[in-house]
Amino acid sequence: MRIVKTFAECRSLASDSTGLVPTLGFVHEGHLDLMSRCRRENDLVISSLFVNPLQFGDPADFDAYPRKFDRDAGLMEAADVDVLFAPSLEEMYPVEPVTAVVVKGITESMEGAHRPGHFEGVATVVTKLLAGIQPDRAYFGKKDAQQLTMVTRMVPDLSLPVEIVACPTVREADGLALSSRNVRLSDQARRLAVGLSEGLFAAADLVASGERDGAAIERTVTAQLAGMSAEYVTLADRASAEPIVQLDRPAFLAAAVEVGGVRLIDNVWLETDGSSDRGRRLDETSILYGEAH
Amino acid sequence: MRIVKTFAECRSLASDSTGLVPTLGFVHEGHLDLMSRCRRENDLVISSLFVNPLQFGDPADFDAYPRKFDRDAGLMEAADVDVLFAPSLEEMYPVEPVTAVVVKGITESMEGAHRPGHFEGVATVVTKLLAGIQPDRAYFGKKDAQQLTMVTRMVPDLSLPVEIVACPTVREADGLALSSRNVRLSDQARRLAVGLSEGLFAAADLVASGERDGAAIERTVTAQLAGMSAEYVTLADRASAEPIVQLDRPAFLAAAVEVGGVRLIDNVWLETDGSSDRGRRLDETSILYGEAH
Repeated sequence: MRIVKTFAECRSLASDSTGLVPTLGFVHEGHLDLMSRCRRENDLVISSLFVNPLQFGDPADFDAYPRKFDRDAGLMEAADVDVLFAPSLEEMYPVEPVTAVVVKGITESMEGAHRPGHFEGVATVVTKLLAGIQPDRAYFGKKDAQQLTMVTRMVPDLSLPVEIVACPTVREADGLALSSRNVRLSDQARRLAVGLSEGLFAAADLVASGERDGAAIERTVTAQLAGMSAEYVTLADRASAEPIVQLDRPAFLAAAVEVGGVRLIDNVWLETDGSSDRGRRLDETSILYGEAH
Repeated sequence: MRIVKTFAECRSLASDSTGLVPTLGFVHEGHLDLMSRCRRENDLVISSLFVNPLQFGDPADFDAYPRKFDRDAGLMEAADVDVLFAPSLEEMYPVEPVTAVVVKGITESMEGAHRPGHFEGVATVVTKLLAGIQPDRAYFGKKDAQQLTMVTRMVPDLSLPVEIVACPTVREADGLALSSRNVRLSDQARRLAVGLSEGLFAAADLVASGERDGAAIERTVTAQLAGMSAEYVTLADRASAEPIVQLDRPAFLAAAVEVGGVRLIDNVWLETDGSSDRGRRLDETSILYGEAH
């Protein structure tokens, strides 16, 4: 695996089929699934590692974001990544940036409403990675459902010649969606946190049994959030990320909570036929908690 | 010359050095200068022709914008352009666009203040052309000075792997800057319109003689605008496009006027040593007025 610091060197390595897995580091099995699919579908696999200050509204959240470069590089190498793109702040922002990519509508509710500036930062840095690396495919997790809707729509809107590939959420054995933030949960908060995925699964079960009313579906989640503070529980159109009151088109049911000082998000994808995508569960303890790395 | 309708076909033709000359059609000697420089510096010359509805605030202005495809294609072929990229509205906007590229600061004064939404439209469509065609160099005229400042800054901000090349303004024999809008001037308005460039040249002369005070420089232009209605006359920092009160850094002196129902813009570039770039003048009548095309 080559460690590359500049966009120009990334482009110079491009193959006939180049896949990109963007990360903020602190790699877990969710990222490894993206890399594994990227490996199957492309001659060259690039994974980027850049913690983007612009997408953190709160500087304390940016500072607290876990960083372990050697661990991440080792995991990427083991995942058969060809190129780790780890740009410096100067490579990403050679001058003070004044340009932003703004996506209307899609970014207004849910995460957009609760994290001002977040999506503008994500949209801008994703545009930079796609424009500067020029991959043929880029891999994103369904766990960030609203982000995935946004990135998918940016591609035709900005004529970016890339295919966005969506990959299922990976969960710990009890159902909690993998997130680098999970390592910051106290034991007590960790026990409570499982209610988030349990609520979403219960709602998906309700949908499977015939329920299509948005409020009823959302209430099923809220009922399971004991000990957590819910920021939102929203049934949303998957193409527009706009809240809907009835499950009458492809949708996701998303929620954000705060538990023990840690903010967590999760979602399930719901179809009008009552089926759902709940992601996959690990059988074993996640590498997030491993000592070896 | 090949006429190409899709971004994908454009990219498939890319050479080791590909240059792009974006146009809104109705080609004149200003465009031909861009194409000529692009030809000298690149193996493959692409010129795009797309009248972007998003950058016209006023639908009537969009409708009135002159279009002559066969004439333009003939001029491009004669200029040794390899590829004319003429996308359909559907190729440019396969879905209703919700994504915009927004450049802060640079776009606030002058054209930005007088044409709401204009720069957002330009920034977004230029991003699409640069992202979708992936040229190594792109050529823009100094006549749209504020636009040039904006595009130049978008490149590092969006990590677009392209060099922006700035080319001098081309003028009719009496000094009026070439613009496809010139053909809409009545005889009387055409006689008055020359005052715009004369005012800018008089101000550049004043700078050459030692003046550095912004207000004095701007007044010199305003004094020459008899019969025209001035929207603005502004001395601006060339890197930030922000108005400045003293010529103490690389700058442009820009003005917009309305004369006989036609909106015209022009500028001269000014240096702190008193020198200026006023562009070049044609000896003969512009092809804008030719019958042959």
